[in-house]
Amino acid sequence: MSDYCVGIDIGGTTVKCGLFKVNGELEEKWEVPTRKIDAGKFILSDVAHELKKHMEARYLSNKDLRGIGMGVPGPVEPDGHVSVCVNLGWKDVWPAKEMEELMGGDVVCKVGNDANVAALGEMWVGGGVGHNSIVAVTLGTGVGGGIIIDGKIVSGAHGLGGEIGHMHVRDDEPNFCNCGGKGCVEQAASATGILNEAKRVLASTDEPSAMREYGDELSCRLVCDCAKAGDKLALRALETSLDYLGQGLALVAHVVDPEVFVIGGGVSKAGTYLINLIKVYFHKYTPMFKNRPDIVLATLGNDAGIYGAARLVLE
Amino acid sequence: MSDYCVGIDIGGTTVKCGLFKVNGELEEKWEVPTRKIDAGKFILSDVAHELKKHMEARYLSNKDLRGIGMGVPGPVEPDGHVSVCVNLGWKDVWPAKEMEELMGGDVVCKVGNDANVAALGEMWVGGGVGHNSIVAVTLGTGVGGGIIIDGKIVSGAHGLGGEIGHMHVRDDEPNFCNCGGKGCVEQAASATGILNEAKRVLASTDEPSAMREYGDELSCRLVCDCAKAGDKLALRALETSLDYLGQGLALVAHVVDPEVFVIGGGVSKAGTYLINLIKVYFHKYTPMFKNRPDIVLATLGNDAGIYGAARLVLE
Repeated sequence: MSDYCVGIDIGGTTVKCGLFKVNGELEEKWEVPTRKIDAGKFILSDVAHELKKHMEARYLSNKDLRGIGMGVPGPVEPDGHVSVCVNLGWKDVWPAKEMEELMGGDVVCKVGNDANVAALGEMWVGGGVGHNSIVAVTLGTGVGGGIIIDGKIVSGAHGLGGEIGHMHVRDDEPNFCNCGGKGCVEQAASATGILNEAKRVLASTDEPSAMREYGDELSCRLVCDCAKAGDKLALRALETSLDYLGQGLALVAHVVDPEVFVIGGGVSKAGTYLINLIKVYFHKYTPMFKNRPDIVLATLGNDAGIYGAARLVLE
Repeated sequence: MSDYCVGIDIGGTTVKCGLFKVNGELEEKWEVPTRKIDAGKFILSDVAHELKKHMEARYLSNKDLRGIGMGVPGPVEPDGHVSVCVNLGWKDVWPAKEMEELMGGDVVCKVGNDANVAALGEMWVGGGVGHNSIVAVTLGTGVGGGIIIDGKIVSGAHGLGGEIGHMHVRDDEPNFCNCGGKGCVEQAASATGILNEAKRVLASTDEPSAMREYGDELSCRLVCDCAKAGDKLALRALETSLDYLGQGLALVAHVVDPEVFVIGGGVSKAGTYLINLIKVYFHKYTPMFKNRPDIVLATLGNDAGIYGAARLVLE
């Protein structure tokens, strides 16, 4: 009986691995360092090597696995091809095929973009449980997105489905984004973006603010804490950022109209306070919606990737 | 043998009907006036009545039909329920169920939003042929959108999938849109939007322009014609409008990343000239795309709705 599945979340620093029951129970998880030397050619063999050891310790063979799913930090083409993955040093890699070979050829492997895969995890056993059309948004150093419609990941014809962090929302942004654009959601509403907005607000006025006490130590978390505590300038900065985020979510809602938005990433630690603020701006930009997609917090944290990767092979 | 299917495109003035072979050949088409009195309760019975006559004339019975598909000018919920359709006067209608009963109960009926259904038609035998992930954009009095991913319409959890005409793209728009928002794609890039933009440009300067000769007769078509002929102010207006349209398409591309955008509606009569201009602005807002969705002209014109409606029942 194939009662198990494996989820692998390949990051630029570590590879997170999880062994799951097919009902979504996490049995065990471990990490493998990401060896990026030589165009990342050891990454998958390192992972396969460790996986085999963990399986042996439990007397599991490939037959016990429904499959191995993987999330990759970059665009994955519909046929599973990864033409470039900057964070891993990969060029022209077929990760699923390679992993199948490394595991001996008799186990199914699937691959997806990490943000899309994390969305699948949140839908399986996280904040999106009970829904089958969700948009997961990760507010971290950047802004990632994963879109699932009718239970299926929308990876896009060129692997760029769900790249909502790079939607243009802000005309007066003077700096370029990593993507080459200007005024992306990511520039406005990532942790970095919120911090930058706070710095701009502080520089624009002499008004007092608790944020000034932190000097160079000021962080997105502290901006959120100050806003929560009623600091006027912190709130002004956060509201500006979340207006752009709300606009971004509204844009997405006019395209795929999901049942729910699931908000994760470091910024989401600000909790319900943040969600309620996002809703204000989301409503502002969705006047034609009589019923709106809900906005909720993600619940799987950094494990969303391994959950979703494991879920990939259960489709 | 069920070799036929019927496509019905219900509009606010007329209902277009088509009898098709299942290979996509249009055998015959006809129109029925849309009787909107009494909350539109005669619309479907009128259509069924006429359809039966057309079938009898060809000695066709329900057994010869694979089914009857319908497009409705408003949101359709995932279960086929139409809670409100302002253009038809409908409230709380189940069009597919009702049509099945009107036809005698032994024929399958399906229903979708008209813009989504038109997109399906363009994918079947129109500008999107050969693709299975397309976004159809109708530039007419308003801006409609239909999204098809992996061959399936994305109708949205609240029936608002593909409402790309109401994405916010323009911060300096002073007027409200019908949807209650401000700065929608529709306000900037519909036929009405392009004409308004031309009027604004004309009012903002005394520079000469061929557009001035038309006075109150100026139309979107004339603005496009003047721009093509090299009129500086017409080009300025058209470029402003198409910058916002390109931004809108780019936003959509960051969400669902389709294989192709198919542009239809009255404005699209400006042809390749228009498509090439749209591409310039689409590229501007999609710097992270190495390969981009193509942008092409729709080919079915006003018949896209009946084609797509017929295609609905072949899924």
